[in-house]
Amino acid sequence: MKLQRDLDATRQRSLRLAEPLSAEDCCAQSMPDSSPVKWHLAHTTWFFETFVLEPHEPGFAPFDPSFRYLFNSYYNGIGARHPRPQRGLLTRPALERVLVWRRNVDARLARLLASRAGDAALASLVTLGVQHEQQHQELILTDVKHLLAQNSSAPAYLDQPLPAAAAPAPLAWQRFDGGAAEIGYRGDGFCFDNELPRHRVHLEPFELATRLVSNGEFLRFIEAGGYRDPALWLSDGWDRVMSGELAHPLYWQRDDKGGWQEFTLHGLAPLDPARPLTHVSLYEADAYARWCGTRLPTEAEWEVAARGQPVPAGALHPDAAASGGLCQLFGDCWQWTSSSYSPYPGFAPAPGAIGEYNGKFMINQYVLRGSSCATPPGHARASYRNFFPAGARWQFTGIRLAR
Amino acid sequence: MKLQRDLDATRQRSLRLAEPLSAEDCCAQSMPDSSPVKWHLAHTTWFFETFVLEPHEPGFAPFDPSFRYLFNSYYNGIGARHPRPQRGLLTRPALERVLVWRRNVDARLARLLASRAGDAALASLVTLGVQHEQQHQELILTDVKHLLAQNSSAPAYLDQPLPAAAAPAPLAWQRFDGGAAEIGYRGDGFCFDNELPRHRVHLEPFELATRLVSNGEFLRFIEAGGYRDPALWLSDGWDRVMSGELAHPLYWQRDDKGGWQEFTLHGLAPLDPARPLTHVSLYEADAYARWCGTRLPTEAEWEVAARGQPVPAGALHPDAAASGGLCQLFGDCWQWTSSSYSPYPGFAPAPGAIGEYNGKFMINQYVLRGSSCATPPGHARASYRNFFPAGARWQFTGIRLAR
Amino acid sequence: MKLQRDLDATRQRSLRLAEPLSAEDCCAQSMPDSSPVKWHLAHTTWFFETFVLEPHEPGFAPFDPSFRYLFNSYYNGIGARHPRPQRGLLTRPALERVLVWRRNVDARLARLLASRAGDAALASLVTLGVQHEQQHQELILTDVKHLLAQNSSAPAYLDQPLPAAAAPAPLAWQRFDGGAAEIGYRGDGFCFDNELPRHRVHLEPFELATRLVSNGEFLRFIEAGGYRDPALWLSDGWDRVMSGELAHPLYWQRDDKGGWQEFTLHGLAPLDPARPLTHVSLYEADAYARWCGTRLPTEAEWEVAARGQPVPAGALHPDAAASGGLCQLFGDCWQWTSSSYSPYPGFAPAPGAIGEYNGKFMINQYVLRGSSCATPPGHARASYRNFFPAGARWQFTGIRLAR
Amino acid sequence: MKLQRDLDATRQRSLRLAEPLSAEDCCAQSMPDSSPVKWHLAHTTWFFETFVLEPHEPGFAPFDPSFRYLFNSYYNGIGARHPRPQRGLLTRPALERVLVWRRNVDARLARLLASRAGDAALASLVTLGVQHEQQHQELILTDVKHLLAQNSSAPAYLDQPLPAAAAPAPLAWQRFDGGAAEIGYRGDGFCFDNELPRHRVHLEPFELATRLVSNGEFLRFIEAGGYRDPALWLSDGWDRVMSGELAHPLYWQRDDKGGWQEFTLHGLAPLDPARPLTHVSLYEADAYARWCGTRLPTEAEWEVAARGQPVPAGALHPDAAASGGLCQLFGDCWQWTSSSYSPYPGFAPAPGAIGEYNGKFMINQYVLRGSSCATPPGHARASYRNFFPAGARWQFTGIRLAR
Repeated sequence: MKLQRDLDATRQRSLRLAEPLSAEDCCAQSMPDSSPVKWHLAHTTWFFETFVLEPHEPGFAPFDPSFRYLFNSYYNGIGARHPRPQRGLLTRPALERVLVWRRNVDARLARLLASRAGDAALASLVTLGVQHEQQHQELILTDVKHLLAQNSSAPAYLDQPLPAAAAPAPLAWQRFDGGAAEIGYRGDGFCFDNELPRHRVHLEPFELATRLVSNGEFLRFIEAGGYRDPALWLSDGWDRVMSGELAHPLYWQRDDKGGWQEFTLHGLAPLDPARPLTHVSLYEADAYARWCGTRLPTEAEWEVAARGQPVPAGALHPDAAASGGLCQLFGDCWQWTSSSYSPYPGFAPAPGAIGEYNGKFMINQYVLRGSSCATPPGHARASYRNFFPAGARWQFTGIRLAR
Repeated sequence: MKLQRDLDATRQRSLRLAEPLSAEDCCAQSMPDSSPVKWHLAHTTWFFETFVLEPHEPGFAPFDPSFRYLFNSYYNGIGARHPRPQRGLLTRPALERVLVWRRNVDARLARLLASRAGDAALASLVTLGVQHEQQHQELILTDVKHLLAQNSSAPAYLDQPLPAAAAPAPLAWQRFDGGAAEIGYRGDGFCFDNELPRHRVHLEPFELATRLVSNGEFLRFIEAGGYRDPALWLSDGWDRVMSGELAHPLYWQRDDKGGWQEFTLHGLAPLDPARPLTHVSLYEADAYARWCGTRLPTEAEWEVAARGQPVPAGALHPDAAASGGLCQLFGDCWQWTSSSYSPYPGFAPAPGAIGEYNGKFMINQYVLRGSSCATPPGHARASYRNFFPAGARWQFTGIRLAR
Repeated sequence: MKLQRDLDATRQRSLRLAEPLSAEDCCAQSMPDSSPVKWHLAHTTWFFETFVLEPHEPGFAPFDPSFRYLFNSYYNGIGARHPRPQRGLLTRPALERVLVWRRNVDARLARLLASRAGDAALASLVTLGVQHEQQHQELILTDVKHLLAQNSSAPAYLDQPLPAAAAPAPLAWQRFDGGAAEIGYRGDGFCFDNELPRHRVHLEPFELATRLVSNGEFLRFIEAGGYRDPALWLSDGWDRVMSGELAHPLYWQRDDKGGWQEFTLHGLAPLDPARPLTHVSLYEADAYARWCGTRLPTEAEWEVAARGQPVPAGALHPDAAASGGLCQLFGDCWQWTSSSYSPYPGFAPAPGAIGEYNGKFMINQYVLRGSSCATPPGHARASYRNFFPAGARWQFTGIRLAR
Repeated sequence: MKLQRDLDATRQRSLRLAEPLSAEDCCAQSMPDSSPVKWHLAHTTWFFETFVLEPHEPGFAPFDPSFRYLFNSYYNGIGARHPRPQRGLLTRPALERVLVWRRNVDARLARLLASRAGDAALASLVTLGVQHEQQHQELILTDVKHLLAQNSSAPAYLDQPLPAAAAPAPLAWQRFDGGAAEIGYRGDGFCFDNELPRHRVHLEPFELATRLVSNGEFLRFIEAGGYRDPALWLSDGWDRVMSGELAHPLYWQRDDKGGWQEFTLHGLAPLDPARPLTHVSLYEADAYARWCGTRLPTEAEWEVAARGQPVPAGALHPDAAASGGLCQLFGDCWQWTSSSYSPYPGFAPAPGAIGEYNGKFMINQYVLRGSSCATPPGHARASYRNFFPAGARWQFTGIRLAR
C-alpha cells in the first residue's frame, strides 16, 4: 500500500536526519523560533497520535498522557501546552524514550491502516501527518544549523567537506505576458488548505530573473555600501540595520584576513561567490532588489512562472545555477515574494483543532515560494506557500529578482 | 488664487484644533506612536520650509536652524533627527515660538506663491504640503485624545456634551458582482503616490454590510466570550489577548455598576449601543467578523463599493447610521481591510527625500479605507489608502463586514 | 512664630525655583526616576494637605479629591496612585491651578498653626513637611537639568554664564584615629528617622582626601583608559560600561574639536578642570578610587570627619575648592560612600503611612553624604543620609577619596 | 598526601553528583543565573588547568584551546568568553569529552603535585581549586533542581522518596550580649579572601531564634495575607509582589485540593509543615520578619552566635530542627542577613585574574550565612560569606529571625 510506504519512508527519514547528532545536540534550542530536534521527533509523533490514532484507534490510550501537553505545538483546540521558548529545557523524556514512542506509534498506525484499507478520511489524515512531518524535517536541518552556529567552535552537522560549486550561468530575464491567470492548487494529489481555492488573478506583464542572486553579486551590494544607505531600505528594515541586527547575511563572518566565511551544515567554509545567496531577510532581499532597480516578484507571478518546472532533490547547501534558462526555482533557496500571507478568496480552514494548521498565521507574514536544499524530496510544488515574518533569516531564504 | 485659499484655510484649521488646549496639553506625548500637538504644528511648518521654501525661495535661510533637526519626522534624506519617543521632552521651543514660526513661514509662502503664479511644480509641492497638514490634523485629534485618556480625571478636549445619536438602521447586505475591475486614483485632483498606478484586479462576487458594526453588536461579542475563545483569533491577536493587551475596545471602561463607559473627545460618556464601534485593532475586527461567520473586505472590494458615495464633514465622535442603504463609508470610522499595505503594480516613489513619504512604510501594515469623524473636510476619497500596524487602536478605527 | 516663617520661606523658595521655567518646562518628565516641576509643586502641597490638614483641620475637605490620587508619590498606606513613569502626562491640572492649590493650602496651614500654637505633634508634622519640600527643591533642580539636557539645543535653566572658578587647592590627606565612635543624629533640631538611633561603631584609622576629585583629575582617568580596563570595575559597573551606558560622566559631551563640554544649569560650558567632578555613578566613583589605589569612605568615616565642618549656601553648579584644609564636605557634590543604605541598630519607622518615608527604601541603595550646590540652605548636616541606587547619576554626585 | 586525597575526593564527588543525570540533563540551562551540569564539570576543570597547570606545569599545553573560551566563567583577566545566558547551547564538546578532559587534568595535577611536594604556593592554588569545585557542587544541585522544576512532569533528581521529618522543636530565643567583638576568619585552615581581614565590630545586645522558620509558620503568614499587605514589604519587594513574581516560595505549588506541594530533588512532595522554609528571597525573609515584629540578623551577629556550633553533613532537602537549643546554623538552609556584601576594612583582592574571584561582586548583593543541605561536607564555617542579590531564590535559602 502506497500510503503505508510513504509513511514508513518519511518516518525513517526523520531518524536518518538525526543520526549525525548526539542526544545533547537533539535537546538544545537556540532561539524561541527554533525547536530541538528531539522536540521535532516527538511533536510529529504527537501529531499522528492526536489527530489520527485518538479519533480512530479502537480503545485508544495515549502512550504517555504527559506528552499531550509537552509536545503540542500551537493547537489551542487541544489544550494548554509547554511554553515554546522553553522546549530546550525538556531533558525528560530522554531521546531514547521518544524513539520508543515513535516505534510504538508507527506500529499502531500500521495496524490501523491495515484494518481500514479503504477509509479515505483516515488516509487523508495520515497523508497530512506525512506532509507535516516533512515540513518538520526541513526545520530539523535549519534549527540544528542555527544551534551549531552559536558554538564558537563551529561544529559541522555533517563531517564532509562542502562539494565544489560550478560557475553560475549569467543572470538573464525571462518575460511573461500578463492578463488573466489562475493560481492555487489543481490536481489529484495532496495540497495544504492555504493553496486553495484556486482562483483568478490579473497580472501585468513582467520579467523574472533566470536564477537566484549569488553570493558574489550580494557582496558587491555590501561593498557598495548597501547596508549604509537608508534610501534602499523599508522603514522597519532600516531600524534593524541601525540596531545592528542586520549587517550581512546571517551566517557570514569575517575571517582573519578580511575575507568572508559562511557557516554551513558542512562547517565553516570560505564564501563561494558562485553559490546562491541564502539566509537573508525580506528586508535585505527588498533592499538588494531596489539597489538593482528591480523588485521582488509577487507570489502570483512566481507561481505562474514556475508551473511545469522540474523539482530536484535536496542537499545540505544551495548549489550554483547549472543552466542558462529559468532555473533554481526549487531545491536551492526559498524565494521571498512581496506578497503578504493572506487567505485566498473563499478560503475556509477545516473545522476543529486541525483548522489551526495554517489559517491563524495569515497575519504579519510574507510568502516564500519554491523550496530549498533542505526540503524533503517530493514535498515541493508550484502552488506551495511557505511563510515567515519579514525578519526571519534562519531558513534557506534567497532572492529571485523581478521587474 | 485657490491654492493660496486652500493653504490659508488648512493652516488656520490647525490652529483652531489647538485652541481648546493649553501649552501644557500641546507639549506632552503619551506614547511613542503619537506626537505632541505642538510637534504637529511645528512639523507641518517644517515640511513647508524644507520641501517648498528651501528649494524655491530666493535667499532662503531657515527661521531657526535647530528646528531642521527637532521637527524632522522620518526623512532620512534630510538627515539626523530628534528621537521619536522623546518628542514630549521638547519644552523648548515654546508653543508661542512655534506659532511665530508658523506665521513667518505662512508669510514667506504667500510671497513665494504670489511671485510664481504659474509654476506647476511649486503648486504641486504646496498642495502636497496642504494634504500633509490635513493628515496631521487628524493625528492632532487622535493623539490628544490618547493623551487625555491617560489622565484618571478624564478631561474633555471639548467641554460640550456628546450629541445624542439616533437609533441605527438594521444591518443589511449589498451585493456586488465580481469580475474585472480597476482600482487606484483616476482624475484631475490630488492623490498620494500610493494610490497609483490605477490598475486592473479580478474580484469574486461579494457582499458588503450596509453600515459599520455598532457598539451594541460588539458588546454581544464580548458577552458571548469573544475575548476568551482562541478559535476566533489570529495567532498574533490571541497572544495579545493572553498578555492582557486586548480585553475590550481601547477607550472602554467599566463604570461602578458594571456597565460600560467610553472616553471621547467630549469626555467620559455612557457607552451608546447605537454608535459605531471604534478604536479596535485589526485583530479584534477579524475575530468579530469570524464570530459572525463573515470576514473583512479587501481594499479592492471596498474601493469598488465606495465609488460615488458621498463624503460627509467630520465631527469629534462617530455617529450612528442614518439610513438603510450603503452608508458610513466616510466620516465615522476608518475601516480595517484584510489587505496588507503593498505597492500597486508599477508603483514608483518620487526621487529624493520626499519619496520617503509613503513607499518605505509598505511593510507589516494593513490598509484602512474610508475616513473618520476626525478627517478634515475634503481630505477623503474612494481610492485613499490609510495604513497602520494590525495592533494600532488609537485612530478612529471600526469594522465593516463582508462576505 | 519661627515655624510659620520657615514654612513661608520654604513654600516661597519652591516658587522662586520655578520662576525661570514655562508651564511647558514644568510639565515634562524626562525619565521614570525624575518628576515634572509641576508635580513637585503639587506633591509637596499634597503632603501638607494629607499629613497635616486632613488629620488636624476642623471640617477638613480636600481642595480637589482627584489630587489625592494624582499626587501621591509612593505611600501605599494612602491608597492607589498615578503611575510614576507617566507623571509627565498630567497636563491637567494646569500649572496655574496647582499654584491656586498651593495658596489655598498655605492659607489653611497658617490658620491651623495660628489656632494651635503650642501643639508639638502638629509642629513636628509641619516641620517634616518643610524638610520634605526642601528635599523636593533639590529634585526640582536636578530633574529639570535632566529634562533640558535631552534637548539638543541645550537650553539653560538660568540665562547667566557660569561664574569662573578658582584654581583648586592641591589634594591632601587628613588623618583620623580609629576606635570607638558614635554616629547618628544628636541634638534638639530636626532629623529624619533614618539618622536614628545614634549608636556606637568601631572604626579603623583612616585618611580622607581634603577635597573632592576635580574634572581635571577624572579626565586623566579617562585618558589613561579607565573606562576600558575591567580590572578597575565592579562587575555590575563593567556590564554597564560594556553596554555603552557608562563612557564618561553624565553631562559631558565632546565638542567639535575633540575637547569636552559640560551641560550645566547655566547651559553648555567648556569643561573646567578646576571644578569638582559631578554626575557620576557609584560604579565610576569606585573605579576611579581603585585606579588611584584608594577607596571610597564608609558613611561612618565620613560622618566622624564632617562633624563641626561649616555648611555653605548653595549655587547652581559645584565650585572649586577654596582652601587647603578639609573642605567641600557640604554645598558642592554629594559624596558616594561604600555603605549600603541599611537601618541603624534599633531603627523603627513611624507607624502609619508616614512610616513609609524612609524605611522601605533600605534595600539595593547606597548612602551619599554631605550636600550639593542644589541643596537648600539649612537642610544639610553631618548625620544626614542621602541614598540612591549605584547607577544613579542625575543628582550632583561626586567623589571624595579615602584610604 | 592530604592535599592529593582532598583533590581526589572532591573531583570524584562532582562525578557522583552527575551520576543520576543523563547527558541531556547535564547540557540544559534553565535561566541565565544557573549553568548546565556539564558546564560546571568543565569550568571547574578549566579552573585547575588555567590557574594551576598553566603557570606551573612544565611544557604546558591546553587539552583543547577552544575550552579556554568556552568555559571561562567571568575572569576578564583571562580574556573573552562564551556568553553566560547561552551555556545551554554548548552541545559540543559532548559530556563524554568533558569527562575525558577531567581525567586528563586530574592526571596532570597528580604528576605536578607529586613532583612539587613542598611548594606552598602551588598547594594554596590547588586548595583554592578544591574549594572552588565544592562551591560548584552546591550549584550543580541547585541548578539541576531549577531545571527539573521547569518540566511539568516534575522529574526527580533522585528517585527515592523524601525521608520523613520529625516534628520541629518550638522556636525559642537565645540572648547574646553586645559590645566589642571580632569577626572574620582566624585559624590555620583555608578561607576565602572575603572573610579577611578579621576585624573589630561593635554590637548591641541581641537575640537569635534557636531554629529556622518552618513551612508551617510561613504558611500562616501567607494565610494571614502577608503577600497582600504593602506595609510589610521593602519597596523593591512590593514591586515584585505587584508584578506577580513573588506570590509564594519558589517551588511551592497548589495541588488539586487547594493544599500545597513542594518540588524537591526527590520530586514533588506534599508540603511538610515541620521542615524549614526554603527558596525564599531576601524580600520575603524581611517581610516575614517584620510581620513577626522581629528582623533579620546582621552578618556580624550571626557569626558571633555561630562560633563553635557543629557543622553537620548534607542531604538533598532541609530537615526539621532536631533539638531545642540553637541549631540549624549549618546544613539545612543558608540564612539571609540584613548585611550588604561589602569588603571588610582593609580587604585587598589578590593581584591578577584570580583577584576577580570575590571582590568585584561586592555590590548590590546581600550576605547569607551558614550552609545548606546541598553544601559539600567540610566546606562550611562560621566566618563563611555567601552572597546573592536580594531577589535570588533558587538556592536553599531560609530565614533565621533576630530581635
